[in-house]
Amino acid sequence: MPLHPDRLFSPEPSQRSVARQLYAQVAELPLVCPHGHVPPSLFAAPDYQFESPLALIVLPDHYLLRMLYSQGVALEALGVPPLDGAPYERDPRRAWRRFAEHFYLFRGTPSGIWLSHVFEAIFGIQARLNAQSADLFYDQIAARLAEPDFQPRRLYQRFKIEALCTTDAATDPLDQHAAIRQSGWDGRILPTFRPDDVINLDSADWRANIERLSALSGIDIGHYRTFIQALEARRDFFRAMGAVASDHGASSPYTERLSEAEAETIFQRALRGSLSADEARRFTGHMLIESARMSAEDGLTMQLHVGSFRDHNPLLRRRFGRDKGADIPQPTEFTRNLKPLLDAFGNDARLTLVVFTLDESTYARELAPLAGHYPALRLGAPWWFHDSPNGMARYFDQVMETCGIYNTAGFNDDTRAFLSIPARHDLWRRAACNWLAGLVVRGILDEAEAAEMAVELAVGLARRTYRL
Amino acid sequence: MPLHPDRLFSPEPSQRSVARQLYAQVAELPLVCPHGHVPPSLFAAPDYQFESPLALIVLPDHYLLRMLYSQGVALEALGVPPLDGAPYERDPRRAWRRFAEHFYLFRGTPSGIWLSHVFEAIFGIQARLNAQSADLFYDQIAARLAEPDFQPRRLYQRFKIEALCTTDAATDPLDQHAAIRQSGWDGRILPTFRPDDVINLDSADWRANIERLSALSGIDIGHYRTFIQALEARRDFFRAMGAVASDHGASSPYTERLSEAEAETIFQRALRGSLSADEARRFTGHMLIESARMSAEDGLTMQLHVGSFRDHNPLLRRRFGRDKGADIPQPTEFTRNLKPLLDAFGNDARLTLVVFTLDESTYARELAPLAGHYPALRLGAPWWFHDSPNGMARYFDQVMETCGIYNTAGFNDDTRAFLSIPARHDLWRRAACNWLAGLVVRGILDEAEAAEMAVELAVGLARRTYRL
Amino acid sequence: MPLHPDRLFSPEPSQRSVARQLYAQVAELPLVCPHGHVPPSLFAAPDYQFESPLALIVLPDHYLLRMLYSQGVALEALGVPPLDGAPYERDPRRAWRRFAEHFYLFRGTPSGIWLSHVFEAIFGIQARLNAQSADLFYDQIAARLAEPDFQPRRLYQRFKIEALCTTDAATDPLDQHAAIRQSGWDGRILPTFRPDDVINLDSADWRANIERLSALSGIDIGHYRTFIQALEARRDFFRAMGAVASDHGASSPYTERLSEAEAETIFQRALRGSLSADEARRFTGHMLIESARMSAEDGLTMQLHVGSFRDHNPLLRRRFGRDKGADIPQPTEFTRNLKPLLDAFGNDARLTLVVFTLDESTYARELAPLAGHYPALRLGAPWWFHDSPNGMARYFDQVMETCGIYNTAGFNDDTRAFLSIPARHDLWRRAACNWLAGLVVRGILDEAEAAEMAVELAVGLARRTYRL
Repeated sequence: MPLHPDRLFSPEPSQRSVARQLYAQVAELPLVCPHGHVPPSLFAAPDYQFESPLALIVLPDHYLLRMLYSQGVALEALGVPPLDGAPYERDPRRAWRRFAEHFYLFRGTPSGIWLSHVFEAIFGIQARLNAQSADLFYDQIAARLAEPDFQPRRLYQRFKIEALCTTDAATDPLDQHAAIRQSGWDGRILPTFRPDDVINLDSADWRANIERLSALSGIDIGHYRTFIQALEARRDFFRAMGAVASDHGASSPYTERLSEAEAETIFQRALRGSLSADEARRFTGHMLIESARMSAEDGLTMQLHVGSFRDHNPLLRRRFGRDKGADIPQPTEFTRNLKPLLDAFGNDARLTLVVFTLDESTYARELAPLAGHYPALRLGAPWWFHDSPNGMARYFDQVMETCGIYNTAGFNDDTRAFLSIPARHDLWRRAACNWLAGLVVRGILDEAEAAEMAVELAVGLARRTYRL
Repeated sequence: MPLHPDRLFSPEPSQRSVARQLYAQVAELPLVCPHGHVPPSLFAAPDYQFESPLALIVLPDHYLLRMLYSQGVALEALGVPPLDGAPYERDPRRAWRRFAEHFYLFRGTPSGIWLSHVFEAIFGIQARLNAQSADLFYDQIAARLAEPDFQPRRLYQRFKIEALCTTDAATDPLDQHAAIRQSGWDGRILPTFRPDDVINLDSADWRANIERLSALSGIDIGHYRTFIQALEARRDFFRAMGAVASDHGASSPYTERLSEAEAETIFQRALRGSLSADEARRFTGHMLIESARMSAEDGLTMQLHVGSFRDHNPLLRRRFGRDKGADIPQPTEFTRNLKPLLDAFGNDARLTLVVFTLDESTYARELAPLAGHYPALRLGAPWWFHDSPNGMARYFDQVMETCGIYNTAGFNDDTRAFLSIPARHDLWRRAACNWLAGLVVRGILDEAEAAEMAVELAVGLARRTYRL
Repeated sequence: MPLHPDRLFSPEPSQRSVARQLYAQVAELPLVCPHGHVPPSLFAAPDYQFESPLALIVLPDHYLLRMLYSQGVALEALGVPPLDGAPYERDPRRAWRRFAEHFYLFRGTPSGIWLSHVFEAIFGIQARLNAQSADLFYDQIAARLAEPDFQPRRLYQRFKIEALCTTDAATDPLDQHAAIRQSGWDGRILPTFRPDDVINLDSADWRANIERLSALSGIDIGHYRTFIQALEARRDFFRAMGAVASDHGASSPYTERLSEAEAETIFQRALRGSLSADEARRFTGHMLIESARMSAEDGLTMQLHVGSFRDHNPLLRRRFGRDKGADIPQPTEFTRNLKPLLDAFGNDARLTLVVFTLDESTYARELAPLAGHYPALRLGAPWWFHDSPNGMARYFDQVMETCGIYNTAGFNDDTRAFLSIPARHDLWRRAACNWLAGLVVRGILDEAEAAEMAVELAVGLARRTYRL
């Protein structure tokens, strides 16, 4: 169906009218994208072309894969290759048809909203995707992808992206970013320092990652002290390549200050391969504090994404590898877990720490009170499953009364799906304007205040939080 | 007051109008009742007659008893007999008056909504129940109950029930169900296999239950192996009697795979009466996986109702027995607890596992992500305290964006109160149509999609989930 | 901006119209204030005068301090004196200007709503507070504070306060309350018995507090038994001084019945200074049950405020002392923790126990089911961070369907900020009327029921819960 101009706004006429006015003031603002997972390779060559509608839209999107899988669609049938070389659907058109037949599963979901937006606003298709229209969609998208206007650099301009931060392992040489910079193109594609694979001592291939870190940093990592030095060297390199932030993933926000001797002992045990799960957990907790220390010193905004149980489904992990939609949130506690980090750096004006949660029960109970007190803390946008109309409404309702908008970090789209970026920002801006309109018609804000806040939520907070 | 034709819909005219149109398409559909606690004895004899308005409406309904008790009304005064033979109100009319005097307590509660519906739609009474009208209600209801049209079989037809599943202990001989089948009546009253009292080794009377299970199955249960065989035999019997599902209650969704040797050791300790609480817990966790295995093999849909602290009030338990409204929910965790079961059967297309929760913080955090990934998993309707207008609204808002409607199990009324069944389905259908209407007026769905989804939520999902 | 007459009501015209009618019936009812932290000294002398706009509005309000601090405003710059005598802003006008410059931070927060109400309704200022208007506000407020009409006793009458309960340590001699009573003034300022500092054995200065308790009670406290006697003596004194309630703070609602011997052992260890953290926790849990026993006997309504991690920020605690906005909520569990207390006194009609939570996930999961069953239990109003428009809406939506309004305790303003009391009650009354109006326009209540309930929520429930 055609995109409704007032979509996502309250149906109540007075609120809708205010929301529409507020939205008109932010709809065309540039897109600030401080956190996401778009591959920088899209921008390294000026004439990069997407491979197929399937490779563009379905294969990289674990939101789609998980839902299709939940309803009995085998990943092989969608064109996902098993790691063991078993057969799978190699015809992208046939895999696309399978996706199209099941597109009804996404009714009422953010994936459904984003894709409808992509199909119409980017590809100009107003039909509904289903078994009948599958080929029409495939052909029309494939035709567009062959046009120069659909190369990523052109789309970057068309989307009015102001800056786009990628997420890069500490051991990434940033070759793609170097290529972008050397090409003379003026788009701002910035790396983000993500050291999980060397900080979490129980990571797969940790030993190999440390060797790579040694090689890249030129520092021989035999001790905790040299490990820290190598990380600092990499951060310097990332900053030289334009990075404005680091990013940290962990199953919990546990933090603990280890003595240097304890850290050294655990690190040596990891090098010898005789680490316990508890030691790994404590080391990660310590390294979060160390990372806060480094951020306070070098100015990289520190992001913390915690609370996901990664690769919950071992069958899928073995068969297809990571990031196939089997990550499941778990209960998360911040008040006690973050305290050692906040004791050390919560009052430090040099640090900006942005916390994201998958456990919404922590919004009003822990995170808004913490962000509404500690100068170093900002609350990140609704994350992952909560990056949705209701997820945003709950965020606004549960967070803003306690910490105000000014202790939040604005929006980030956090996506691998480059084409969905405008749809995601549009959804956020509409949700934000609708929330503000609700405060105006309830006499809590006047329209001038709401308009200022709408701009803050659309671009201002993200720019300032990440010093972009 | 008279039932409002647009009750429970948004007051906003555009949303109300869409909700009304959607509701018109599902209001008269048959009632699919795959889980509940109506006694099959109501249908065993063709001329069953309810005893009194009190016995019909108040005594079996722990929602009513708990609220009246919370405000100082003694259960004895409501006609509930103490186990020790102490005196209690034996005049049902006097007990009814006490209920009527306190009916104002139910203002704004689902019990209030259901009862208003029952009084008007079933008994044709439009007055408000209070001290003044108590006798009027009592007389009018009593008069109706004496009419043949108010026999349960007639009401079953009048309510347009398509199938009604009861809940029956593994040790129930299903005599009432046999009587129904032998009577030649064409109503579908189906048993459900509930083995808690033999699986939970710390159940009251566990030893006696095992003896009964031995006797009924004809298998001498001296070992874990024969215990499993006896359960399988009973499942076969239940299936032969029409069962489509099993049901499992536990205080937590903890699952753990025991080796056969461990299971045998614990089982023997239980037989000897030397069991620890932790062993009982682990055995239940193991048996949930075993039950999933049996369901995968025999096709019974597996239901899991977890998170209630049963009989929280020992005074009431001692004085009146179980199910008097003193069951209290507790925090529940699914992501880690269910993992061993899902590792074993979560990808198994033969299994349908329907999970119910009393801890709404798990909706968006754990259950919707799990149901939106594992093919075997479906999320059950809002349960118990959450089977209410706001409970449903929260369910729709927190669940559907992540797992879509197609990973939910539709509605079940889960009631002992036979007469309230139409009221409960009506509330669900109105809530569902109002939710869908909200998506339509926000431009997220079109009306054709919403209409299809309304039918799914009313009947389709329940039919498919339970293969009815 | 001028206060909107329909502020906080739904914008939907039919709901707004009903809300307005309901509100008209309760807007002018007296204010019942059964719990709060207004200093009784305000009323001890008939001509008490507030010191400055800063001392009146900013310095006692940790809601304001925490938010300003979170955005980098040093507490010294706001006029808060460091404990070590370090320099701070001694000019209240300059500190006020700093507050005014940052007043935009409170957009959309309850502090913003309350202060706008205070500025307009009490001081007659309709401008918006910011850097430009800072002096205008300061001068106008300062001028008013010098007028006799702005003395606390006059404001008490003008606000139509019916009774105002303060919160007082068990070791407080209640001299201010005595002065009020002796003055012959007819305002009802009542003490509340708060024994945390003697019951929580790990309190700062516990030993000194016990000595003070000995001195005040005239009972030499050398043993657990005499400790109990001294507490009972103080309760008698508080009751003689008008107290209607006790209040208890703890980090968790853990309760446990200790034997007298165990209690004695732990108490002796505390006297010797050799207490473990676990012993302190168990003793507090025991004393909550003992306090319930005392309440059942002497009729003081028992309040329980649990779930806050006090003084989370040690830097602030050391530099400025307590109550500077660094208290952070944490996850709380009631179903198991309260059970020992409820086993002992939950069915006791003599006890009224009012429970408050900072963990909203317990509303629908634990507290409403408990309050909807146990005769002794009432659920307190939305507390602290949740005393806000959305906090109230969530409370109504998550609590009332399960326990009804009659198992709640009505409203209390829980404030140190005397001037904000009318604003807080007004917000509650508007939120309550808007919620009731939503039920009316959805056909769940009729207007007569809603009007009765509005009065209950405004004054009736609070009066009865506290026997005021």
